[in-house]
Amino acid sequence: MKIDLEDIVKTLKEKNNFYILTHKSPDGDTLGSAFALCLALQKINKNVKVLCSDEIPERYDILYKNAKKQNFDPAFIISVDIADTQLLGDRLLCYSNTIDLCIDHHPSNKKYSKCWYIEEHSAANVEIIYKIIKMMGIDFDPYIATCIYTGISTDTGCFRNANTTSRSYKIAAEMIDNGADAFKINKIMFDTKSKAQLYLERICIDNMEFFCKDKCAVISLTDKQIKQSGASESDCEGLSSIPRKVDGVLVGIFIKETDPNVFKISVRTDELIDASKICSKFDGGGHKCAAGCTIPGSLPDVKEKIISAVCKTIGEENEWNNNNK
Amino acid sequence: MKIDLEDIVKTLKEKNNFYILTHKSPDGDTLGSAFALCLALQKINKNVKVLCSDEIPERYDILYKNAKKQNFDPAFIISVDIADTQLLGDRLLCYSNTIDLCIDHHPSNKKYSKCWYIEEHSAANVEIIYKIIKMMGIDFDPYIATCIYTGISTDTGCFRNANTTSRSYKIAAEMIDNGADAFKINKIMFDTKSKAQLYLERICIDNMEFFCKDKCAVISLTDKQIKQSGASESDCEGLSSIPRKVDGVLVGIFIKETDPNVFKISVRTDELIDASKICSKFDGGGHKCAAGCTIPGSLPDVKEKIISAVCKTIGEENEWNNNNK
Repeated sequence: MKIDLEDIVKTLKEKNNFYILTHKSPDGDTLGSAFALCLALQKINKNVKVLCSDEIPERYDILYKNAKKQNFDPAFIISVDIADTQLLGDRLLCYSNTIDLCIDHHPSNKKYSKCWYIEEHSAANVEIIYKIIKMMGIDFDPYIATCIYTGISTDTGCFRNANTTSRSYKIAAEMIDNGADAFKINKIMFDTKSKAQLYLERICIDNMEFFCKDKCAVISLTDKQIKQSGASESDCEGLSSIPRKVDGVLVGIFIKETDPNVFKISVRTDELIDASKICSKFDGGGHKCAAGCTIPGSLPDVKEKIISAVCKTIGEENEWNNNNK
Repeated sequence: MKIDLEDIVKTLKEKNNFYILTHKSPDGDTLGSAFALCLALQKINKNVKVLCSDEIPERYDILYKNAKKQNFDPAFIISVDIADTQLLGDRLLCYSNTIDLCIDHHPSNKKYSKCWYIEEHSAANVEIIYKIIKMMGIDFDPYIATCIYTGISTDTGCFRNANTTSRSYKIAAEMIDNGADAFKINKIMFDTKSKAQLYLERICIDNMEFFCKDKCAVISLTDKQIKQSGASESDCEGLSSIPRKVDGVLVGIFIKETDPNVFKISVRTDELIDASKICSKFDGGGHKCAAGCTIPGSLPDVKEKIISAVCKTIGEENEWNNNNK
């Protein structure tokens, strides 16, 4: 059942013993949403616990280190920034059918919960959480402000992605005024690279290939290359944005081997091309300018599949654009 | 003579036939300042001309393409974002002694003009221009908004540098609401790389060296390497920020040969170290976290000089920090 923000505020005030679920391979927005809400509810003496299938990368400790650790049985289960129960990951899959409320901003949301609130035009899910906390009359202390700011900054690619609105900036400004250290947060999230990351970047630049008349750029990393570099899972995160940045490229593809002969594909696009439409052909999804999918097979086969899908889309959409000019 | 914003507004309303001078190797802030002010004054029917010693890179056409081209003799000369007359460059050096008003945000400003207004805590010089236009009661149309947004975004490294304040975000939000296309601007300024740039990045990563117990990272490019890559002057711009981003690095140094045996040094620092202090030892200057200088000599000699200055500073400041904890 679709509900509105007033319903959410009422429910949160009435109920207690909340579990907040975040998506697997957690990012700044799912964690920022969960811990902002957790900290806010703990301030009004509710029991709250944030759960994640995967281990939370160390750089997010600025989000969770001030949340109280509480143990209790859940009476109300909330998911944040999760479009589909598949994204709960193995450890949280058991909650699939018992989620009371889903708060999300993905257009592809599957409406799997008893109630849901989906705001597609929100650049980050934390922007919804911001409104909820504001409506509840809970103060934004520096810890909550840090969570909200981090969610916005990470989900907008530090205010660079096409989804960013003036509201994103206004909330960010308010969070800075409430004590979020934007410089420190962005330094951790964007401007700190390990030597292994730099080494991987070099490999990626070396093996970049161009297709569809240079409108599609592709980089790939095998499991062997990643292991050789000594890089961790999260060291690979920034790499997916590299190919789209090349002058004239409309679609950037990053292919990463996650298991033997299983490849995770990240698609980043210019405003003109819908990345989620390309990924949906391979049972993936996401946003218009940033989406992902998983394709099994050998690297050459996987490459061929995704590149031909991309070239077809670029061709179609170009035709469409020309016809409609 | 130091003057205040009210004086500036009064003068701009009274006078006419303005020349606005920008600094050599122009960036988004000096050009954004100049063209925002130019467009605003042209809206109230003043004659205004923006001058620059160097050719303005093509990517800044979003700033200047809507300014009217007017020819007249100057009655009032303004410099924007220029700390020192040396930065006027060869073609504008003739105005050195005739500048009526300097509007700047550099702490190192030399107060070379008849009147000056310097606001050191402004993240970007356009933030001052924003206030002047606002006080003059001139509307921010999309063209002026584009200039102001671009200045803020480029001078804050897209909201990542330590100088960024909540005011920067608030003005940015207001400019987006007035028609600045932030996505497009940031894509042009930050997220578009030529193949030559990517190639240079690879060379830089390859030749990165570490000093002062890995707290200082250094990359260098010779004129020969740059020419081989086919890169233009502006292709090198983003490179200076690479070394500081490495985990644990407090000072990042980028050394670029500008003439045979003449090297331009860019110093980027963590909040703990004052980059402008390091560069002032070589007659350079700038901001606390981003400064520059020029050192003549062979590459090994130049490297040795700047690295020993950096290591001395890191040593001293570390000692200072320890004594004051």
